[in-house]
Amino acid sequence: MKFNVKIEVMLKPGHSDPEGETTARALRELNYPIESVSVSKVYMVVLEAGSKAEAEKMADGMCRRLLANPTKDDYRFEIRETR
Amino acid sequence: MKFNVKIEVMLKPGHSDPEGETTARALRELNYPIESVSVSKVYMVVLEAGSKAEAEKMADGMCRRLLANPTKDDYRFEIRETR
Repeated sequence: MKFNVKIEVMLKPGHSDPEGETTARALRELNYPIESVSVSKVYMVVLEAGSKAEAEKMADGMCRRLLANPTKDDYRFEIRETR
Repeated sequence: MKFNVKIEVMLKPGHSDPEGETTARALRELNYPIESVSVSKVYMVVLEAGSKAEAEKMADGMCRRLLANPTKDDYRFEIRETR
């Protein structure tokens, strides 16, 4: 079976987010009343797995082993079977 | 009123996504059965606006003027009032 896995990797609370701060400053210079901006990354992954449970296990492993840095990142994912 | 605006900026279909391709290759080297990976960016913006309609208008303007490149990016956003 084929699954779409949407993985979002974001900074843990309290970690400095220079890209978000730069974006906030640029938006304020365009006169938008911005309080804050934080930036995260989304990976849309298409993979083969025998079941949704197996796809979940793979997604968690991919985050821990490659996509998220455990020191500074949190992650979450959603999985749905493709048709 | 204060609003949380979640803006996602992704490549238009057909545009080359070198970061996604590199990620797919790295995951395959870890033996994950990956078909494809595409990468997008999420901006969590907190801003002041008089109404949800005004916040939507600002979010659309921010995407067109700064966050998305009209040549290669699509964008979408969700808005909710903060409590």
